[in-house]
Amino acid sequence: MARNPERRIALVDAAIEVLAHEGARGLTFRAVDSKAGVPAGTASNYFASRDDLFTQTGARIYVRMTPKPEEVDDAMRPAPTRELYVELMRWLVRRMTVERTGYLALLELRLEATRRPALQAELNRAIRADLETNRRFHLDSGLPGDADAFLVIYLAMTGLLLEHFTLPQVLADRDLDDLVETVVTRIIPEK
Amino acid sequence: MARNPERRIALVDAAIEVLAHEGARGLTFRAVDSKAGVPAGTASNYFASRDDLFTQTGARIYVRMTPKPEEVDDAMRPAPTRELYVELMRWLVRRMTVERTGYLALLELRLEATRRPALQAELNRAIRADLETNRRFHLDSGLPGDADAFLVIYLAMTGLLLEHFTLPQVLADRDLDDLVETVVTRIIPEK
Repeated sequence: MARNPERRIALVDAAIEVLAHEGARGLTFRAVDSKAGVPAGTASNYFASRDDLFTQTGARIYVRMTPKPEEVDDAMRPAPTRELYVELMRWLVRRMTVERTGYLALLELRLEATRRPALQAELNRAIRADLETNRRFHLDSGLPGDADAFLVIYLAMTGLLLEHFTLPQVLADRDLDDLVETVVTRIIPEK
Repeated sequence: MARNPERRIALVDAAIEVLAHEGARGLTFRAVDSKAGVPAGTASNYFASRDDLFTQTGARIYVRMTPKPEEVDDAMRPAPTRELYVELMRWLVRRMTVERTGYLALLELRLEATRRPALQAELNRAIRADLETNRRFHLDSGLPGDADAFLVIYLAMTGLLLEHFTLPQVLADRDLDDLVETVVTRIIPEK
């Protein structure tokens, strides 16, 4: 296996683009080489198999989507009220909007995971770990809402992002920031 | 265009299978003919283009997912309480479980719609119409919760179904019926 870490990241980022634009079926070593602008055969030096390409891509999307610790510290400076919860969920939507390609690539991977056990295991691990980190963060933050409220918010925001990024017209008669506020205020009790 | 309605439905049902198992990229006339067990060239007599095949498939999934009027009448016989709301959402999960292939095919179509404007328009029309029908049904039913509560339930159930059907292990430490009850009782106020 080749070991240039920057080259590997560039290849995986190219794979994310291929996934979002061509679908999982289009994700081949050849397509990654072409999208990354590297000589044919390069990707095959970095990934042991197509399964390996899929699972490394899934792990990388999570890295790209996670905010930096100092950004989180900044965001958590205000008092942990329901209003702050609304702002944090609006920030999540903004981050996913910047990462729209990664978000769509992750949906492609979720579907491919129904056909590919190794990818299923990796995505399951990554998403469970992310959910558990966020659950602990929520419970330690002093934000209102217990573990079940956190989980229901997670499900509602998952549905909102799926709708917004695949069929934006469905929710277009609602301002997106207002809709996020509605989601949070309907699930999190007023203090 | 060929006009045998039963043959058309058989071809579209084959297209749903192809979508769920091969992804949007795999949905070709040839794959549909093969899955439906009909002579090569049949699908091309029923669909004007690949766009047409995608949009007819999207419309058909909605037909398959919609319960019969008499089933809805039966389900609505008890008093319209929050407990009934829980039962209705559990029934939705059971229907989607029976239609898992259709559900996964619809996710493939949502992603393909980001690349295919005609499909985007058709899915947007179908999902908006379905959402509006369900919203009116909810408001006329006497079930607790206003239009915003209905919308937040819709988003949370969308997230729950996405998680459950693509990465079932993520939520596996929760009983699915209990999780549905948590979603409804956290969003719908007690009367």
